[in-house]
Amino acid sequence: MTKEELFSISITESDSKILEQSKARWDNIAKPIDGLGSFEEIICRIAAVQGNVIPAIYRKAHIIMCADNGIFEEGVSQTSQKVTCDVAELMGQRKSSVGMMAEGYPIDMFVYDIGINSETTPEGVINAKVRKGTENFLKKPAMEETECLAAIKTGIDAVKACKEKGYHIISTGEMGIANTTTSTALLCALKGLAPKEFTGKGAGLTDSGLKNKIQIIEKGISLYRGERSDQEITSKGGVFEIVRSLGGLDIAGLTGVFIGGAIYHIPIVIDGVISAVAAMVADRLVPGCRDYMLASHMGREQGMKVVLEELSLKPVIHADLALGEGTGAILLFPMLDMAMSLYRSGTSFGDTDIDQYERFDK
Amino acid sequence: MTKEELFSISITESDSKILEQSKARWDNIAKPIDGLGSFEEIICRIAAVQGNVIPAIYRKAHIIMCADNGIFEEGVSQTSQKVTCDVAELMGQRKSSVGMMAEGYPIDMFVYDIGINSETTPEGVINAKVRKGTENFLKKPAMEETECLAAIKTGIDAVKACKEKGYHIISTGEMGIANTTTSTALLCALKGLAPKEFTGKGAGLTDSGLKNKIQIIEKGISLYRGERSDQEITSKGGVFEIVRSLGGLDIAGLTGVFIGGAIYHIPIVIDGVISAVAAMVADRLVPGCRDYMLASHMGREQGMKVVLEELSLKPVIHADLALGEGTGAILLFPMLDMAMSLYRSGTSFGDTDIDQYERFDK
Repeated sequence: MTKEELFSISITESDSKILEQSKARWDNIAKPIDGLGSFEEIICRIAAVQGNVIPAIYRKAHIIMCADNGIFEEGVSQTSQKVTCDVAELMGQRKSSVGMMAEGYPIDMFVYDIGINSETTPEGVINAKVRKGTENFLKKPAMEETECLAAIKTGIDAVKACKEKGYHIISTGEMGIANTTTSTALLCALKGLAPKEFTGKGAGLTDSGLKNKIQIIEKGISLYRGERSDQEITSKGGVFEIVRSLGGLDIAGLTGVFIGGAIYHIPIVIDGVISAVAAMVADRLVPGCRDYMLASHMGREQGMKVVLEELSLKPVIHADLALGEGTGAILLFPMLDMAMSLYRSGTSFGDTDIDQYERFDK
Repeated sequence: MTKEELFSISITESDSKILEQSKARWDNIAKPIDGLGSFEEIICRIAAVQGNVIPAIYRKAHIIMCADNGIFEEGVSQTSQKVTCDVAELMGQRKSSVGMMAEGYPIDMFVYDIGINSETTPEGVINAKVRKGTENFLKKPAMEETECLAAIKTGIDAVKACKEKGYHIISTGEMGIANTTTSTALLCALKGLAPKEFTGKGAGLTDSGLKNKIQIIEKGISLYRGERSDQEITSKGGVFEIVRSLGGLDIAGLTGVFIGGAIYHIPIVIDGVISAVAAMVADRLVPGCRDYMLASHMGREQGMKVVLEELSLKPVIHADLALGEGTGAILLFPMLDMAMSLYRSGTSFGDTDIDQYERFDK
């Protein structure tokens, strides 16, 4: 895929007629109007994505992008870089946190080595290594153009493969030491925000560690965004340049997953801030992708709110999560299953003596 | 049960040592510290309630209290009063909204007729009718003292029965046309709040319908709270008097469920505002009950925030829910199951080469 091919991808809007029919179906179920709140809206949006008033969400895939970040060497994390590979190895055995959480729950895991800094890819992990970790962005751009494009293509193809296997919905996750640094750098560079207000402690930092992390993000932004105006930055070329300079291979891969969702009409669930930044990048590179995204949780990192506002998405889970791996995203699924169960089989007013509620507010 | 017996119930605090041990167990799982956020805290609190570092939440019971409210005759709802009985009948067949949502999910439903305005109790519903609906509180107090006590006792006994059957955790729900009126009246009377700021449209009202509802609540409060000071109101006797005058049998029953949770050491999940007001009443009548409560969702009604603040509880679901029946409370369960799966079987740092994260913030 070339940059030109990426920039020329065009997305058809999700089906607004199906959305309305779906809302009407909710209103006909024997319950107060809008009673299930955001869950009604989410199911309607999934229906519109799939082009089916009664969507299917039985077959669930969880895609995890694992990669290392060169910026690690500037001391932005309390752990060693090897943890990325160690956790990916656990993921391959379904023994990492997200695997344990999903135990007994029907969700298939697809773990991608899209750029772990290791010679080999752990067992049970898909080898899609673009390179062994990115460059330290204080020294040179994190990726070459071709590498960034390859990572995005990997994400798009991951969704294509899921579509071919018959999955109905996909959640996203990541693993990569130092990726709250790269995602915060991207967020602040793309939205013109001050890193000191949006940088969190990731998986845990001392106060001086946090100070260092902020300074590194500030330096990175001044290197690659420099004096460019917001307008230059928001062009597709500007966004791509920022992503390849500051971003991680995991983020680029997830960007591809969100683009793939829009191409192949599969709803993609956003996890925390890293996944959310990838979603924002996807919608800026390929406008319209947002229709195919679902938010799950608000996360602990400050940037989440800003990103989800740009995408006009509201998360239903507010639980101060900061685990990664897509653990927050998969928490959404069993709640959607419950909502779908009511939506699919709920008693309609017509089947009871109960008068349908009237909608007075519209 | 006499009023004196109710007021003299004393609650042992949940086990703070177990709480600490539970937190230490979370910290030893290979993941960032506090990574699972509120879910870590919830599991710790359940452990402390059950007095077991590894609590069990397999066996789940859902208790629904159904009752009618005399205030219905003042036109505070768009539906007919018969809907309470109709929906209870569906509940008995597991065909109401909460029953459909829980389809295929292991949760046992216990639906109580604690005061439906009907001659008979629908099939599949437990007959615990205290009386056929309450009085219109604009004409006389909603319940006699003995009736309010009987309803509270019903709730306590419902938890006792669940304990004897081996249930580990209980969620709460209600059904009763006009019960957003009674719960808002209680909330405002007990906390000295202005009804016009806390009254919502319940299952749907026109703007003039809402105005009427507010006026009725204001009248009710001036009738029974009158000129009494906050101090008089917050005494156990004062709280009881407000509940029996303005409350519903469903609310009194749920109050009993929350007290029962504290007596029998079973965590009880709060649903929306009606359930939350009952929880607040329970903690005021029997101080310490709050240790045994879990919040689930924020709900749409304005009062929720105030009540949960009084109880120092934070809900993890923010989805603008307003369905009733305990639909929001049961949405918490599958997420807790996922968190417990990680907590129970998660890979510990000791089983890997990964160094344990350090806690720098405490």
